[in-house]
Amino acid sequence: MALMHYPVVNRNGDIITSAVTNLDLHDMSRAAKTYGVKAFYIVTPLMDQQRLVKKITSHWIEGAGAEYNPLRRKALELVSIKSSLNEVVGEIYNTCELFPKIVVTSSKNFGHKLTIDNFRTMLKNSGTYLLLFGTGWGFTEEFISAADYLLEPVKGCTDYNHLSVRSAAAIILDRLLGI
Amino acid sequence: MALMHYPVVNRNGDIITSAVTNLDLHDMSRAAKTYGVKAFYIVTPLMDQQRLVKKITSHWIEGAGAEYNPLRRKALELVSIKSSLNEVVGEIYNTCELFPKIVVTSSKNFGHKLTIDNFRTMLKNSGTYLLLFGTGWGFTEEFISAADYLLEPVKGCTDYNHLSVRSAAAIILDRLLGI
Repeated sequence: MALMHYPVVNRNGDIITSAVTNLDLHDMSRAAKTYGVKAFYIVTPLMDQQRLVKKITSHWIEGAGAEYNPLRRKALELVSIKSSLNEVVGEIYNTCELFPKIVVTSSKNFGHKLTIDNFRTMLKNSGTYLLLFGTGWGFTEEFISAADYLLEPVKGCTDYNHLSVRSAAAIILDRLLGI
Repeated sequence: MALMHYPVVNRNGDIITSAVTNLDLHDMSRAAKTYGVKAFYIVTPLMDQQRLVKKITSHWIEGAGAEYNPLRRKALELVSIKSSLNEVVGEIYNTCELFPKIVVTSSKNFGHKLTIDNFRTMLKNSGTYLLLFGTGWGFTEEFISAADYLLEPVKGCTDYNHLSVRSAAAIILDRLLGI
């Protein structure tokens, strides 16, 4: 899976590069590890943000944090930093010798959607999938249209539709991969 | 539901009062709002921590944040600050005229547990329940024993068992109250 910091929109709908949030790395890598996700890509084109991610993960993988909390190390070892979606796809191709199907998530209601149940079945069968989560106020419509699939949004039991990406990712992984 | 900062243990098993984490308030109140939870109590006996919580929630409920992001306001309006579990139970009694059944969560495997399925059924029937989440390394065994129910831990599909409380709460609410 990947957490994308570009191209996403801000609250006004402008395309931006969002800042990396420390707890996204921790919460989402731990959820990924819990549900057997193979890799967790942090995607940002900004070099200083890439350095920040490297600094955080190094602390927990090789630095003082590794001894202090080995459970965090195991999760953050899944993290890989990339500049773009193309770089992620390239690495997956080099590793798996096939291109992943790209499944994008969004809290908004665009047209044709892949249901959780159908994606769950697809994951049980063969295939390589890359699940994308957006930061900020989510992906642009153009970006979503270019993906292979758009996953249906997480709905609760109210009309409030504003989960954090950390919560949404945890719920989606549980629905897709939970026993 | 309530997020407890005391009595919880640290990594060495010592009983501590944990510090409040800003993103716990945001992520968990948004998840609570999404799944129709009636109130979200932040419990800490430390006055300076209570003031911190008040400062954060006021910013988003009455301050500059309310206008900037009304969706956060709606979620954080669920937050209520209390010094102890007794205070929480007292407020629920004053509001509902009955004492809530206390359901405690833990990632550890203690004895008798309430299954998610059974609790889901209980919530569909009548009754008032208070669901407790622990911070730090979780609740003491004594605290868990004193509750009415211990909810079964969230399991993924691996043996990695170290979700953040934010992720675990999101998954538990989805399993209990999702459509």
